[in-house]
Amino acid sequence: LTALDTSRLRLYLVVDPDLVRGVVVDVVTAAIDGGVTTVQLRMKSATDGERESLAGELAGICRVRSTLFLVNDRVDIAMAVDADGVHLGVDDLSIEAARRQVGPRLVIGFSPETDDQASSARRRGVDYLGVGPVFATTSKADAGEAIGIDALRRRREISDLPTIGIGGITHLNAADVMATGASGIAVMSAILGSPDPQGASEQLHAGMTSGRR
Amino acid sequence: LTALDTSRLRLYLVVDPDLVRGVVVDVVTAAIDGGVTTVQLRMKSATDGERESLAGELAGICRVRSTLFLVNDRVDIAMAVDADGVHLGVDDLSIEAARRQVGPRLVIGFSPETDDQASSARRRGVDYLGVGPVFATTSKADAGEAIGIDALRRRREISDLPTIGIGGITHLNAADVMATGASGIAVMSAILGSPDPQGASEQLHAGMTSGRR
Repeated sequence: LTALDTSRLRLYLVVDPDLVRGVVVDVVTAAIDGGVTTVQLRMKSATDGERESLAGELAGICRVRSTLFLVNDRVDIAMAVDADGVHLGVDDLSIEAARRQVGPRLVIGFSPETDDQASSARRRGVDYLGVGPVFATTSKADAGEAIGIDALRRRREISDLPTIGIGGITHLNAADVMATGASGIAVMSAILGSPDPQGASEQLHAGMTSGRR
Repeated sequence: LTALDTSRLRLYLVVDPDLVRGVVVDVVTAAIDGGVTTVQLRMKSATDGERESLAGELAGICRVRSTLFLVNDRVDIAMAVDADGVHLGVDDLSIEAARRQVGPRLVIGFSPETDDQASSARRRGVDYLGVGPVFATTSKADAGEAIGIDALRRRREISDLPTIGIGGITHLNAADVMATGASGIAVMSAILGSPDPQGASEQLHAGMTSGRR
């Protein structure tokens, strides 16, 4: 499996262009300047040509800034732009098929919806887990009910994979998420919807460690 | 490029599960028994898990019956099930990116929407063209206006690629399509919506040659 440096998962931005306030590439660049370590492109309402085009732009931005770049759902788009990996959900292409296509080097993230899916993820070829929604969120229409901090901790423990929390995370609760042993936090609106995405990223970074003092 | 045996494009069934009257695998099997030489899976309203699953089933059916099996739009789904190739439109993953991923052996079909897109297709890595809608169709909501027999002939000639006609083709007009020099005809409703898909396929086969007598 990939030797994924888990410190790269620390502040993980999921970019849904429909939620971006402003120009996508500008917001992503500012977020990286503010400390975002991973960018994932999640583009539900677009043609594949549009996906390939924006993914290619973001891959280029992330490459020169040593930021991990992942594509949500789509192995073919990820491969087309030489992304660092893909993030899959339970309704997506199977982890096994994805691993065959991307080879051993690329990162595969996975969002389990049950404890069983979390515990079997490592042997299926997954490198890290995205677990949530930790708190209630409005960014993802099909995100389901909040699972809470305890379920995040449990899935991290039973999977023994690097795990990031996602869903409703802000600078105010980021430290609680990190206290579960999570490797990082994933956000959408907290950065994408901010008038100052760099400042929002810096604030999230500060929030992650504030509880540890 | 692929040494695509163009005789395999002769009777080309585009399978949209939403248009199938009956059980998808049964209809496809009957259609192959009736003379269908290529099956393309086109699945717009489904999860990727569902796409991978049905594509896997159809790939197996086609493999044992020496029928070409292609996946619409999705290179990753095609690769996951060892399909024979993909079919791309102008809004899909770029032909170049698809060719890099599938390698030289797999088939790439393409639906040009202009004469320029038809004439550049061969050097971009395309193996055959799907051109249409030749006649008015209700099977594909976004198919656009019928282009007619003359535009089909022109695109076949300027591309110098094997070309199939698609859109509103029945046993009554199939011979007119073949008279343009097309390598085959592609249908959806004419087979999928028939109570007797095998009989419908046989009738289309007969219709393709009737005008040549």
